[in-house]
Amino acid sequence: MATPNRIHNFTAGPAALPLPVLARAQEELLDYQGKGMSIMEMSHRSAEFSEVIAAAEENVRQLMNIDDDYAVLFLQGGASMQFAMLPTNLLGEDTADYINTGAWSAKAIKEAQIRGRVNVAWDGKDDAYTRIPAFCEIEHTAGAAYLHICSNETIGGIQYKDFPDAATPLVADMSSDIMSREIDVNAFGMIYAGAQKNIGPSGLALVIMRKDLAERCPDTVNTMLRYSTHIDKGSLFNTPNTWAIYLVKLVTEWVAEQGGVAALEKKNAAKAELLYGAIDGSEFWRAVAEKESRSVMNVTWTTPSADLDATFVSEATAAGLAGLKGHRSVGGLRASIYNACPQAAVEALVSFMAEFEKNHG
Amino acid sequence: MATPNRIHNFTAGPAALPLPVLARAQEELLDYQGKGMSIMEMSHRSAEFSEVIAAAEENVRQLMNIDDDYAVLFLQGGASMQFAMLPTNLLGEDTADYINTGAWSAKAIKEAQIRGRVNVAWDGKDDAYTRIPAFCEIEHTAGAAYLHICSNETIGGIQYKDFPDAATPLVADMSSDIMSREIDVNAFGMIYAGAQKNIGPSGLALVIMRKDLAERCPDTVNTMLRYSTHIDKGSLFNTPNTWAIYLVKLVTEWVAEQGGVAALEKKNAAKAELLYGAIDGSEFWRAVAEKESRSVMNVTWTTPSADLDATFVSEATAAGLAGLKGHRSVGGLRASIYNACPQAAVEALVSFMAEFEKNHG
Repeated sequence: MATPNRIHNFTAGPAALPLPVLARAQEELLDYQGKGMSIMEMSHRSAEFSEVIAAAEENVRQLMNIDDDYAVLFLQGGASMQFAMLPTNLLGEDTADYINTGAWSAKAIKEAQIRGRVNVAWDGKDDAYTRIPAFCEIEHTAGAAYLHICSNETIGGIQYKDFPDAATPLVADMSSDIMSREIDVNAFGMIYAGAQKNIGPSGLALVIMRKDLAERCPDTVNTMLRYSTHIDKGSLFNTPNTWAIYLVKLVTEWVAEQGGVAALEKKNAAKAELLYGAIDGSEFWRAVAEKESRSVMNVTWTTPSADLDATFVSEATAAGLAGLKGHRSVGGLRASIYNACPQAAVEALVSFMAEFEKNHG
Repeated sequence: MATPNRIHNFTAGPAALPLPVLARAQEELLDYQGKGMSIMEMSHRSAEFSEVIAAAEENVRQLMNIDDDYAVLFLQGGASMQFAMLPTNLLGEDTADYINTGAWSAKAIKEAQIRGRVNVAWDGKDDAYTRIPAFCEIEHTAGAAYLHICSNETIGGIQYKDFPDAATPLVADMSSDIMSREIDVNAFGMIYAGAQKNIGPSGLALVIMRKDLAERCPDTVNTMLRYSTHIDKGSLFNTPNTWAIYLVKLVTEWVAEQGGVAALEKKNAAKAELLYGAIDGSEFWRAVAEKESRSVMNVTWTTPSADLDATFVSEATAAGLAGLKGHRSVGGLRASIYNACPQAAVEALVSFMAEFEKNHG
């Protein structure tokens, strides 16, 4: 097949996927492993798909070093559905602590408040959500059902470097930094992530949870909304998003080929260092996040003016650098440099920035 | 590209997709319309995807003749999530009438019972769920919130030929016969369907609902579970299953090219007539469903014994006829002959049946 026309994709999500993964999906789209049909056309209970979902789960377990006390689930509805499922299953009559570090934390908080009692244990609004709290700033509730954090705020571009210790289970929305760095899963009660940034296409959430927590769910909850349903049925209670799970299998194989999460963590750090270095290297650019809280995945910054930001986005797009516009709620610039974003893309961006500054600075 | 190795696929779902749709998806998988990225790698708020979802919705509206009083939604979680969302949004303190024609009706009933009061207005258990009720058999509740039916029972292979008149909104699970025949959408309060049988891959539900019904939802329901959320945001409240919506766009274009739903209805009738004709044509085969209730989409039948059923399935598979095993809960044989199943596939099946009867009869 001819070399495809591909640009540098810095979109926040759905985001770039590894090219070898896409090429493989393309190659076997009409005929999966000689079976004469697409993986999309196969029963989710077929031998072929059973192998796919088992391998996807096993790959996640291996790459993240997840032990058997934890379930690994592939659910529909993305992280937004998890904002509702989490308190529906785990909150009960207790209070849940939530840390508000920005837009995605706030959405999780809103849904928990619909379900029960929430204590906002820290709120970053005085600093315009540009930093992660010091642990001593967090106001824990004694006996809280859980403590919820968003490990990486995709819009604000801030990220936890380490994680708070809590007497209650720690729950993290890792949608935009899952598998981008080594973490100790045993430090969490539950981790969830929309797939469409680091591990696959949209329409899927990965949920990693301590199995015992699923037992908290009240009887009045519908079957599809209970974690225990999906744990009991290995994510096959109903027809799952088979295409997305197949892609998660391919992406996790690719992660392993890259040397695993530790190797990607190094590559991600190098990419972020290069880009933040360029931003810090000139008065022309201004980073949005406080230095200690900067995200390795979503880099947010600005030119001297909103007009120049817009010019930057349009000239960058014309130069084959896509998706650099900041989120509509905050403006500015943003480069999402997830696992599948190669070093070469960041190098191209940094070169373009130098050129842009020369022309407009 | 070389002619792909493709077999005859009679799987119940996820099921066969039209070959031209798969070929198109394959062709542009790495580079969607010259944009240098896959449709899977694009923001759901990009100009490109906005066009895709708008076209998918418009195609559904045109093909099914849906007017502006109805919303057309693309949601995650399949029909199983609809079993919960429907009563969560529409039931309140009232009673909902549900007709039980088999496995899928029963699942819908179970979830409604978790949410509130349900009257089973007819139950097919005395006939082992082999028929659709006569309308005079339905025991309506005065002032019911709605009347729920499953228009086609995928497992049992029975299908409504016309639809009950009710004083309350009629709600239909059309997962396995959506767009397979002309219906009057205005006769329904709501229609929902998992995409993975007639209109796309798994991981998506199409919901067509009278917009005023969405206003019934109580305030205590989480945002993702409210139909009004998705109506207000045009199915883009959160990141949807973009790949599946893209495929729905391609499948609905294919339906239009076939001459629309009316033309497919004729083709489907011809396929079913051919297969039921073969079954009725010999004492060797026995149809499961009562004649008047037979499904045009899922044909269920048996050989003289369970052992021969198993032999049939394995010999058929070897002969390139896949997915003919009856559902594990009922056994026997089943051929799912949805829109994307060509006449030639049914002809091949009928020939194989004649051969099989000669060898084993």
